[in-house]
Amino acid sequence: MQNFDYMTPTRLIFGKGAVDKLSEAIRPYGKRVLLAYGGGSIKKSGLYDKVKMLLADFEIAELSGIQPNPKYDPSVLEGVRLCKEKKIDIVLAVGGGSVLDCSKAIAAGAKYDGDVWDLITGVKPTQDALPVADILTLAATGSEYDGFAVISRTDTNDKIGYFSPKVYPVFSILDPELTFSVSKKQTAAGCADAMNHVMEQYFTGDTTLLNDGICESMLRSLMANARACLANPEDYRARAEMMLACTYGCNGILALGNTYSGWPCHGMEHALSAYYDITHGEGLAIITPHWMRHVMEKAPDAVVPRLVKYGVNVFGIDATLPLREIAEKAIRATHDFFASIGIPMTLREVGIDESRIAEMARHVVEGWDLKDAWVPLSAADVAAIFHASL
Amino acid sequence: MQNFDYMTPTRLIFGKGAVDKLSEAIRPYGKRVLLAYGGGSIKKSGLYDKVKMLLADFEIAELSGIQPNPKYDPSVLEGVRLCKEKKIDIVLAVGGGSVLDCSKAIAAGAKYDGDVWDLITGVKPTQDALPVADILTLAATGSEYDGFAVISRTDTNDKIGYFSPKVYPVFSILDPELTFSVSKKQTAAGCADAMNHVMEQYFTGDTTLLNDGICESMLRSLMANARACLANPEDYRARAEMMLACTYGCNGILALGNTYSGWPCHGMEHALSAYYDITHGEGLAIITPHWMRHVMEKAPDAVVPRLVKYGVNVFGIDATLPLREIAEKAIRATHDFFASIGIPMTLREVGIDESRIAEMARHVVEGWDLKDAWVPLSAADVAAIFHASL
Repeated sequence: MQNFDYMTPTRLIFGKGAVDKLSEAIRPYGKRVLLAYGGGSIKKSGLYDKVKMLLADFEIAELSGIQPNPKYDPSVLEGVRLCKEKKIDIVLAVGGGSVLDCSKAIAAGAKYDGDVWDLITGVKPTQDALPVADILTLAATGSEYDGFAVISRTDTNDKIGYFSPKVYPVFSILDPELTFSVSKKQTAAGCADAMNHVMEQYFTGDTTLLNDGICESMLRSLMANARACLANPEDYRARAEMMLACTYGCNGILALGNTYSGWPCHGMEHALSAYYDITHGEGLAIITPHWMRHVMEKAPDAVVPRLVKYGVNVFGIDATLPLREIAEKAIRATHDFFASIGIPMTLREVGIDESRIAEMARHVVEGWDLKDAWVPLSAADVAAIFHASL
Repeated sequence: MQNFDYMTPTRLIFGKGAVDKLSEAIRPYGKRVLLAYGGGSIKKSGLYDKVKMLLADFEIAELSGIQPNPKYDPSVLEGVRLCKEKKIDIVLAVGGGSVLDCSKAIAAGAKYDGDVWDLITGVKPTQDALPVADILTLAATGSEYDGFAVISRTDTNDKIGYFSPKVYPVFSILDPELTFSVSKKQTAAGCADAMNHVMEQYFTGDTTLLNDGICESMLRSLMANARACLANPEDYRARAEMMLACTYGCNGILALGNTYSGWPCHGMEHALSAYYDITHGEGLAIITPHWMRHVMEKAPDAVVPRLVKYGVNVFGIDATLPLREIAEKAIRATHDFFASIGIPMTLREVGIDESRIAEMARHVVEGWDLKDAWVPLSAADVAAIFHASL
């Protein structure tokens, strides 16, 4: 069991009507709020008006139009400029993980005088940041309960994972009813993203009985509740359980004491969505079964036993079968689950062909340390996984 | 699923050699430290000398002799007096849950000018507290990761559960090697305490697939690792996993969104240890199977299905048996596990007879709101459970 140093100080305000606690929760942080959001969905749903009403006695500046795979230019740069110009006290993200990630980068940039890209890439340390808070409208990334942000730069095809303990949200308002209107496509992609967060911490060399059990419970819960949400988008209990499960994805609590896995599927998917701007959760779902098969062939002694445990405990595969057969069935079950919730399961279906695979694979291994992954991956391995995923 | 408002801001510094981070971790909080501890065990183990060496450039005041079931008088009162006299900046608990609980009460009392008992009982709100930190030497209570303290008053036979968000430890240093020297008796009692924390949140009316799975994993892990610790007290991995599992016991994370269970076994046990000063985990282990049987008879429609789920998923009882038989086997398995780790499983064995049962039962229902428990309990119910536990 590995040493660790862990903290997640975020306050989770969860449940029906949780938005009503916004004024009370935000007041200690100051009067000037940057309200950050994406497209028009929060206006259509009425959430925008509600937030404006609850913050009637605050000074609000707005940053809208934050896109999926949030962009450094213009969103982060424009947000930083607004924060400095308006002397903003706190950044309030209203939306999904992309809006929240963008807001974290803005909060850090607002307290920095140099080139903000140096903070994102970690070339310069984040010494300070404005407080960030959020009202979440999509269960997926776990950004509401961690210190991570993923920021994309279109001019260089970079999609960078940024981390600072300074950007944990001070509070996250999680009302499952706000996710009733999430489309089937985004519900499925959110489930796949959250499942991948769990799997990427579960598939590693040194784990505990405790963490394994928690991860397996999380996966079973995400699958059952995603199915229920797709069957009835207004199933409160299912939306609530999805929302809660997603919060645990990336703050490390699922893997305390585990060896670091390397998060290889995230590394590979970031290249796919940086080059092609696809939906992150769909990219993950497509490549994950192929990654499983590739690493199983490469390092069967390590991978087969983990796939067996996963297959038996998550999918209920008969534990008396030959180990290799259980492992094969576990990979198949992973693919089939994602397909069953409507995810397109080939790269071609999301508009990716072989033309840039070699370039993307090089980009992955340059930007992501996959030689220290549980099963180390070279550019050739990554290219092979991409080809298998076509 | 119920609404909740959750936060656990404590930093967990976990692993071999974690104590070496003490100076770095404590420095931001000030120079004057109240070092609180129990009997001589930390002197015998060398931990006391190590802490003094690591804090060589701090000003240290000491409070020693904190007992199990920590006492309001003299420990809390003496600690408060010392904090005020020495203008203490932070209280550092070195020991188990009792030392830590006492330190939390001291930290709150040090910032209060009235009668500290009014804070403990909640008659007055805790507006402020000194920061508290700890170096844990016993895996059991979860106090290292929550805002609770249990304080006993011998003159009134009160054992009061105190809570304030002001007394979450700012950091907890958790080195599993510090628990190598914990006796078999205390290892078993710690396991029983931690298991009860899980069970008291698991046995309730409205739970989620997610929380149920996490709780079941936690129980399986605690049982397997307690056995391993008893077989080899220096099994690092087992001690580490026990220590990690125990941290999750009482901060609420196991039951986010569940209905409140009422924590009935803790309510009942607090009377036992207030009147007889027994080991908390042993008292819990003794009464828990009898509580299970009593509530199963009283409310079979609610209780049998939960016992079945618990029996199948925690103890691996054959799911094809008749439900009532699975429930009976689950109760028996609970008893047998506690007995197998060496816990005396009757009240008489820990020195309690029937003479004060009626008085204790009244005390329980006066001090603990068991009419709102999952299965409500009257004084007569409590007395019956105590009698069955003799």
